[in-house]
Amino acid sequence: MKILVLGAAGMVGRKLIEKLLATGKLRGEAITSIHGFDIVAASLSSPAGISVTVSAGDISDAATTAALIADRPDVIFHLAAIVSGEAEADFGKGYRINMDGTRHLFDAIAAIDNYTPRVVYSSSIAVFGVPLPDPIGDTHHLTPLTSYGTQKAIGELLLSDLTRRGMMDGVGLRLPTIVVRPGKPNLAASGFFSNIIREPLAGKPAVLPVSRDVMHWMASPRSAVGFCLHAAEIDGAEIGPHRNLTMPGLAITVGEMIEALGRVAGKDAVELIEEKPDETIISIVDNWPRNFQADRAESLGFRAERNFDEIIKAHIDDELGGSL
Amino acid sequence: MKILVLGAAGMVGRKLIEKLLATGKLRGEAITSIHGFDIVAASLSSPAGISVTVSAGDISDAATTAALIADRPDVIFHLAAIVSGEAEADFGKGYRINMDGTRHLFDAIAAIDNYTPRVVYSSSIAVFGVPLPDPIGDTHHLTPLTSYGTQKAIGELLLSDLTRRGMMDGVGLRLPTIVVRPGKPNLAASGFFSNIIREPLAGKPAVLPVSRDVMHWMASPRSAVGFCLHAAEIDGAEIGPHRNLTMPGLAITVGEMIEALGRVAGKDAVELIEEKPDETIISIVDNWPRNFQADRAESLGFRAERNFDEIIKAHIDDELGGSL
Repeated sequence: MKILVLGAAGMVGRKLIEKLLATGKLRGEAITSIHGFDIVAASLSSPAGISVTVSAGDISDAATTAALIADRPDVIFHLAAIVSGEAEADFGKGYRINMDGTRHLFDAIAAIDNYTPRVVYSSSIAVFGVPLPDPIGDTHHLTPLTSYGTQKAIGELLLSDLTRRGMMDGVGLRLPTIVVRPGKPNLAASGFFSNIIREPLAGKPAVLPVSRDVMHWMASPRSAVGFCLHAAEIDGAEIGPHRNLTMPGLAITVGEMIEALGRVAGKDAVELIEEKPDETIISIVDNWPRNFQADRAESLGFRAERNFDEIIKAHIDDELGGSL
Repeated sequence: MKILVLGAAGMVGRKLIEKLLATGKLRGEAITSIHGFDIVAASLSSPAGISVTVSAGDISDAATTAALIADRPDVIFHLAAIVSGEAEADFGKGYRINMDGTRHLFDAIAAIDNYTPRVVYSSSIAVFGVPLPDPIGDTHHLTPLTSYGTQKAIGELLLSDLTRRGMMDGVGLRLPTIVVRPGKPNLAASGFFSNIIREPLAGKPAVLPVSRDVMHWMASPRSAVGFCLHAAEIDGAEIGPHRNLTMPGLAITVGEMIEALGRVAGKDAVELIEEKPDETIISIVDNWPRNFQADRAESLGFRAERNFDEIIKAHIDDELGGSL
C-alpha cells in the first residue's frame, strides 16, 4: 500500500500522515510507503517498515504532478490548495493551483492505463453561497461566491466525471470549518472560531469579532483526519456516481462555543475573550453556510463530533497532552 | 454595438445572426458589426449598414480566442461546443473545446482592463443527472453524468465567478432540447425528438426508438434565439450573483408530440412514424432530465412555447414557408 499526500505540510495533511504512520494500515493492507508533497517540504519522521519521503514543488506545473504519480500510489490524498483569502486576492494563482493543479493531477492519473487509484479530494463548504436554506441538504445547488469555492466546485465536477469514466476512483469531501486549529492565531476571516478557544485554553487573550449568535458549521481536526481515512476505505459502489459529499459537522453558535469553553476550562478562560466587533469579518461571515443536513455522508458512515465539549476535549488530548 | 458570435455555423448561431441582422438593434443600440466565428466559416449575408465578417478557428487555442475579442465586442454569444456524443467519445477534445475554450474566452476578457462585455453562454440541461426530482427546481444541484454536462457546468461556475469579480458580465442559459431541428436526421441520441416531426411534415418516414410515454423538456429554435436575445438585453442586477438560469420549456411526452403532429398535419403524417425500440437510445434517454420548474428564468421574462402545436407551427413558419 503506497500512499501519496498532496498538501502534506498543511494542518490536516500532517495529522493525517501521523495517523497513517501510527496505524500502519489502510484498506486492509500494510502501508509500505508514504510520500508527502507540498509547496514546502514537510518534516516527517519515519518509523520502521514504512518508507517516508517528502518533496516540494508546485502542482500548477503538469510535469511535477505527473512525476508524483509515476510510481502509481494506491491511495492519493489531494489536500493541496491556496486558501480562500489568497485565492480571492490573487486571481491567477488561485486558479493555477486550485483548478489547474487539481486537473493536472486527475489528468495524469487518467493518462496511465489500468491505473484507478482511490483519490480523496478535500473540497469545502465554500462551494455554497447565499441564499441558502436552513439546513442545507445534500441536493442543494453549488453557488460559490468566492473564487476558492468556485475552484473547489470545479474540482468536484472533474472528480465525478473522471471517476464515472473509470479513469480514477475519486471521493470528494466538503469539509466543515476545522476547529480548534492548533498553532498561532492567523488572519483568516474564520480564524477567530479557533482563536477564541485555543488561546484562552493556553491562558492567553483572544478577540471575538462577531456577535455571539453567529452560527457556523464545524468539526475537529481529528474528525477531518477521520473523514479522509474513511473516504480512503469506503466502497465506491456504495457512494454511487455522485462522488462529492458534504461531511457531517456541528452547527453551533459562538455563544454555545463559549459556554462549552466555560464548562471545560472555567470562568477565567471565558474572561480572556474580548468582544471587539469587526464589520469586515461580520459581513464575510454573514455569507457563509451555517447548518447542513449531511444525510448521505452520515449514511455512508462518516462521523463528526455531536457537541462542542467533545471538540474542545479533542484539542486538549491531541495538542495539550490531555490536560490543562 | 459590436457583436461576436462563437458557434456561428451552428443551428442556433445561424438563426441568431439572421435575427440580429433583421432587427438591426440590440440593447437599444444600432448594430454596427457582427463577427461570426466557428470551426468552419459560416456563410452570412450582409445587409446595408452592418459589417458582417466570418472567420474560422479553434477556441482551444488561447491566441485565437484572444484575437477574437481584440476589438472589444459589446456583446458576445458563446454558443460554440463539441456536442454531447462527441465529447463522450473523445475525452481530450471535449475538455479542450468545451472547458479550455470557454476558459480562454473568459480569461481573455478578464485580461482587458475596463472591459466587461455581456457574455451569453449556452449551457445545457445536461448539467443535471439522475436521480432527479419532478419537477427539477432552480436550486437542485448540478450532477452531470456525461463529460459534456460536466464541461458545461464548469463553464457556468467560471462565468459566475468572473462576473462576480467584475471581469465580465455573463449570463448562462441552460437550454432545453431544441425541437424541431431543421436539416437532415442526425445520429445524436436526442435526434429522434426532431426527426419524428420534421420528416413526416416533409412526407418522409421517421423512426421512433423509445416508447410514447417518454417525457422530455423542449423548446423551439425560435425560443432558443429569443432566450439569447433576452439574455443579451436583461439587466444584470436583476439576475443577481447566480448567473446561470434554467430556461423555460415544455415538458411533454412523445405520445403528446405525435398527437400534436396529427392535429397540425393529419393522420397520414402520423403514419409515417415507425416504432422501432432501440435499447441503447432507451437507456440513454432514461437518464435525461424531463421536467423543470424554471421559476427564476420565467420571473426574469424568459418565455418558451406553452404547447407542442406552437412548436410545430414555428417550424412550419420558419422552415417550410408557413404552410405544408
